[in-house]
Amino acid sequence: MPAMVLDGKRAATCVLSHVSERVLVLKKRGVCPGLATVLVGDDPASRVYVSQKIKKCEAAGMVSYHVPLPSTISQEDLESEVRRLNQDPRVHGIIVQLPLPKPLNPAPVLLSLDPCKDADGLHPHNQGRWMAMKSWQEILSSKIPLPCTPAGVMDILRQNNLSVSGRHAVILGRSSLVGKPLAFMLLAADATVTMAHSQTKNLDDVCRSADVLVAAIGRPRFVLGDWVKSGAVVVDVGINRTPQGLVGDVDAPGVSERAGALTPVPGGVGPMTVAMLLQNTVQSAEKFTTNSRTTEAL
Amino acid sequence: MPAMVLDGKRAATCVLSHVSERVLVLKKRGVCPGLATVLVGDDPASRVYVSQKIKKCEAAGMVSYHVPLPSTISQEDLESEVRRLNQDPRVHGIIVQLPLPKPLNPAPVLLSLDPCKDADGLHPHNQGRWMAMKSWQEILSSKIPLPCTPAGVMDILRQNNLSVSGRHAVILGRSSLVGKPLAFMLLAADATVTMAHSQTKNLDDVCRSADVLVAAIGRPRFVLGDWVKSGAVVVDVGINRTPQGLVGDVDAPGVSERAGALTPVPGGVGPMTVAMLLQNTVQSAEKFTTNSRTTEAL
Repeated sequence: MPAMVLDGKRAATCVLSHVSERVLVLKKRGVCPGLATVLVGDDPASRVYVSQKIKKCEAAGMVSYHVPLPSTISQEDLESEVRRLNQDPRVHGIIVQLPLPKPLNPAPVLLSLDPCKDADGLHPHNQGRWMAMKSWQEILSSKIPLPCTPAGVMDILRQNNLSVSGRHAVILGRSSLVGKPLAFMLLAADATVTMAHSQTKNLDDVCRSADVLVAAIGRPRFVLGDWVKSGAVVVDVGINRTPQGLVGDVDAPGVSERAGALTPVPGGVGPMTVAMLLQNTVQSAEKFTTNSRTTEAL
Repeated sequence: MPAMVLDGKRAATCVLSHVSERVLVLKKRGVCPGLATVLVGDDPASRVYVSQKIKKCEAAGMVSYHVPLPSTISQEDLESEVRRLNQDPRVHGIIVQLPLPKPLNPAPVLLSLDPCKDADGLHPHNQGRWMAMKSWQEILSSKIPLPCTPAGVMDILRQNNLSVSGRHAVILGRSSLVGKPLAFMLLAADATVTMAHSQTKNLDDVCRSADVLVAAIGRPRFVLGDWVKSGAVVVDVGINRTPQGLVGDVDAPGVSERAGALTPVPGGVGPMTVAMLLQNTVQSAEKFTTNSRTTEAL
């Protein structure tokens, strides 16, 4: 029997419908949640991602403020631009689309963000705070903005009633956008978590030991069907452009024969990433209206 | 053949001798590195730990400023005290001895620390920054203060030429003081890392798969000899007071028969923790004297 398809579009619709309701409540209080999208240079993939975010943002009733910047911008000017958006009261969330063109350095740009407007959940201050927390419930209750892709993975699992507690999760890939934060999220949800990567020996054996396997390495069709334990939950975070179109990090036809459940590419984790971005933004707007800014800033 | 003993006292002496040299250089420039130790209440174990830190601090030529506070202090007053130390130019590092007496909440106290004076390396801002970095070398070069116990584990491995690259490290325990940061340090050093804990199934089998096994769960003699792969490196972070004296989280006699190398308790990771605290403090003092404070703060 082929794997159950974990439909990310449907899961994202569910998140976005709740986001839209919260936007309506805010608008009744006179607040219109605003998302600023900073796009440096003209990388075609980045342009597509940003335009999708803007479209979904407006569909949810929020306002987007698009800030396109030339690839020749200096590090200093880029950081000033972010600081200007920090001060703009119409803006509740800010994203700086990554990767940045060379030689721009993303780390100081993320640090220049107001942690309260960190719609991508990538500010070290925010990551350091939730990563120190004990349980996934505590993390969610904290209302700290979480990195969107791993938070989207957690939510697609939750929506499909796939508990990870006591199960062995193997994460392929150790990026700071996906692999590392997802490891701590799954750990907080009581999974036993293994972080594997290019230096891991016997990678196929490590994958076969997983009850939950997450592929986030950016290599098309890297994970083969016989690397997967029968019945395992497989989450494919990869989005690779190939001559055959978009494919994930797993060989979907082969993996689907063995896995119990699988996220498709496209239509799996991707839509959830955008949904979590908008959820972070509406959550920021709610915090700005209900709390004093100072207590939230620290 | 019994396991090689990874002598933490000797390794700490080596770190501290380098720290003392750096203190001398600073003193020649008119700067005397200062460590403030904040101790709330009168827990006997905490008092012992703090007095050890003060003793080692002064032995390394630094000045300590001890700040004992009553267990009845309010959350607000404790945070004010930390902010006062943030402003004190004689103080380059601050520790708040944990655990705090109830009902004090440690998280906001850590947030009230100036990240530049974070001698324990526990401020979320600092943790978030180094955790996003790719390699252990990049983390070390960043000069961000690192949490002392896991940094001490990394250094005792380094001093004994025990490379973790490509090896399977299993960490028992997921505290934010040890297990979680150590997982990311070992990962940055190219280990394949598994985080195991109380909800992990077949814990003994998971331990037997480890080339490097770290026990940090606070349960006396929990890890038995036959849980250890022959020749594995075993790091015992536990310090448990029992009627038979201080014992670690591993059953040392049994584990020593199988392991290739083992840190003793006492005299293993413990002395390294204090050494790394003083290393963080001298590093802070160097940064305060060579850089402008503003650029370091973010």
